[in-house]
Amino acid sequence: MKIHPMWKKYPSLQAELKACNALIEKNITIKNKDVNQKITELLSSGGKMLRPAYTIMFSQYKKDADSKKAQAIAAAIEVLHLATLVHDDVIDESPLRRGQETINSRYDNRVAVYTGDYLFTVCFRLLSDYVEDAGALQLDNNGMEKILIGELNQMDMTFNPKMTMRNYIHQIQGKTAQLFALSCYAGAYEEGSEKLAKAAYQIGNNIGLAFQIIDDILDYTQKTDVMGKPIMNDFKKGIYTAPLLFAMQENRRAFEPYIAKKEQISEEELEEVYHLIQQYRGEEKAKELADKYTQKALKQIERLPDNPVKEQLLIITEQALMRNN
Amino acid sequence: MKIHPMWKKYPSLQAELKACNALIEKNITIKNKDVNQKITELLSSGGKMLRPAYTIMFSQYKKDADSKKAQAIAAAIEVLHLATLVHDDVIDESPLRRGQETINSRYDNRVAVYTGDYLFTVCFRLLSDYVEDAGALQLDNNGMEKILIGELNQMDMTFNPKMTMRNYIHQIQGKTAQLFALSCYAGAYEEGSEKLAKAAYQIGNNIGLAFQIIDDILDYTQKTDVMGKPIMNDFKKGIYTAPLLFAMQENRRAFEPYIAKKEQISEEELEEVYHLIQQYRGEEKAKELADKYTQKALKQIERLPDNPVKEQLLIITEQALMRNN
Repeated sequence: MKIHPMWKKYPSLQAELKACNALIEKNITIKNKDVNQKITELLSSGGKMLRPAYTIMFSQYKKDADSKKAQAIAAAIEVLHLATLVHDDVIDESPLRRGQETINSRYDNRVAVYTGDYLFTVCFRLLSDYVEDAGALQLDNNGMEKILIGELNQMDMTFNPKMTMRNYIHQIQGKTAQLFALSCYAGAYEEGSEKLAKAAYQIGNNIGLAFQIIDDILDYTQKTDVMGKPIMNDFKKGIYTAPLLFAMQENRRAFEPYIAKKEQISEEELEEVYHLIQQYRGEEKAKELADKYTQKALKQIERLPDNPVKEQLLIITEQALMRNN
Repeated sequence: MKIHPMWKKYPSLQAELKACNALIEKNITIKNKDVNQKITELLSSGGKMLRPAYTIMFSQYKKDADSKKAQAIAAAIEVLHLATLVHDDVIDESPLRRGQETINSRYDNRVAVYTGDYLFTVCFRLLSDYVEDAGALQLDNNGMEKILIGELNQMDMTFNPKMTMRNYIHQIQGKTAQLFALSCYAGAYEEGSEKLAKAAYQIGNNIGLAFQIIDDILDYTQKTDVMGKPIMNDFKKGIYTAPLLFAMQENRRAFEPYIAKKEQISEEELEEVYHLIQQYRGEEKAKELADKYTQKALKQIERLPDNPVKEQLLIITEQALMRNN
């Protein structure tokens, strides 16, 4: 089982994440070899496992923490994340995920939807086997509701020229920040400190917001392999993110004709949009906002009680949120 | 909250099912009014609630059964069923379900997939709130695995002229019988009798098999409103069920040219297939098989210890499996 190289510098955390991955593998009990292998591939295809890492780090705030329990919660959160990835790929008809053929592409949507469903049940089995308190379980439920509301909001706003930064923050709150917040919260909560858990929730929330904004910036700054043009997949799908929305605040009218073209937009026009975003400093402002949330998270971590794990939390958060920035 | 009229004759069971539905409603806490309403519509759109009814009946085998607990398990099972319906409609791109616009049609696939996911989490919340023993939870997980395997098998066999009755039974085992078996098992198990629970599992399994075979026969015997032709949706989608498979056992070659046409089959050719099935007594034999499973279930119920609920189980099972037969 491969673990992302970023954890090499933290041998004890790396060992916990390996144990977490092994626990997931042990709980994937589909007898169909092909599907089993696709799930295992997804598991070991180089995801950073940031969410479970936060769960484990926050659980270590307590001396003599029950590491089996923390591993189970971390595993449940990673499996929940994988389930949403599998379903996202169905919805977006994506052929590839982390460089591997997706389940919907290899098999079909039916298998992929049910595989995602299966992963949900694995998530709940992990929680019910290892966690006595239903608190963590209930959280997942509320979490799913927030994700759903985020998605609903996104749908209403697709190709909508009235989309605003306010809507955007609301969307990424549900889509991404929620699960980061839960990851941190559950680690701290299960170790018994309600006060720490509340702080952890806020920290995870800010990390998640920064993480998603950075991801959305990459859609503009990363270039396609062949032509060297910006990817701009989100824009093509009518999903408007921070760089565009900041630029639109400066001159909404300049963008409206491009938005009105919807899926019919040409490659040349896409490049024009890209240059307009640069002109109105959309990318720069989006980076500033991501940085604002990162700094907020770092400050909140600094305010936590002193503990050996605090330094690690600071370094890893900085490292996670500095990618291609 | 409307309950199917079939329960009118059983006021105490009807009251339990109403309580079960109310519990589901209480646990659907999406704040988005539209989606909330779509789920409530689905809940009250005339499903028979057979699965929760079996859970409740088997739980009543014990004197002084904890009706709150049985209601929660029954509600969890019905919500699990609803979740798979919502996902099935996405996969099949169905516009209608029980005469109501589907979620995927009213909104889009993204919302429908996440709504199904949300319903899964509601199912697990219900179980974790009311059921202390993880036994029932683990069952759901194995159940989902069997459903997934059934679906995988169905996919391999779509438009496949080598499809057999053996494959078919394996498929409907996962797709339908499994959840009926769990419904009966969980009701009996949670009331403490392992022996009764094992018998209940077998009974539910046979009921589920009969139920699905009857449903599959309806696809051939029910006529479309306008032209009065058989619906034959399954055949059009390459899903081969009991009536066809029995007829193919008599003369496989007669059907092969039609199967080879796949989606390109014409309305006239579909009628020819229908008449071939009649000629080779496919429908008749499918009815005989459904009847065999029904009789098996009834005999197994008769063998249960005497109890006021036994008579009711017999009558309801007969009634449920005699629809349009």
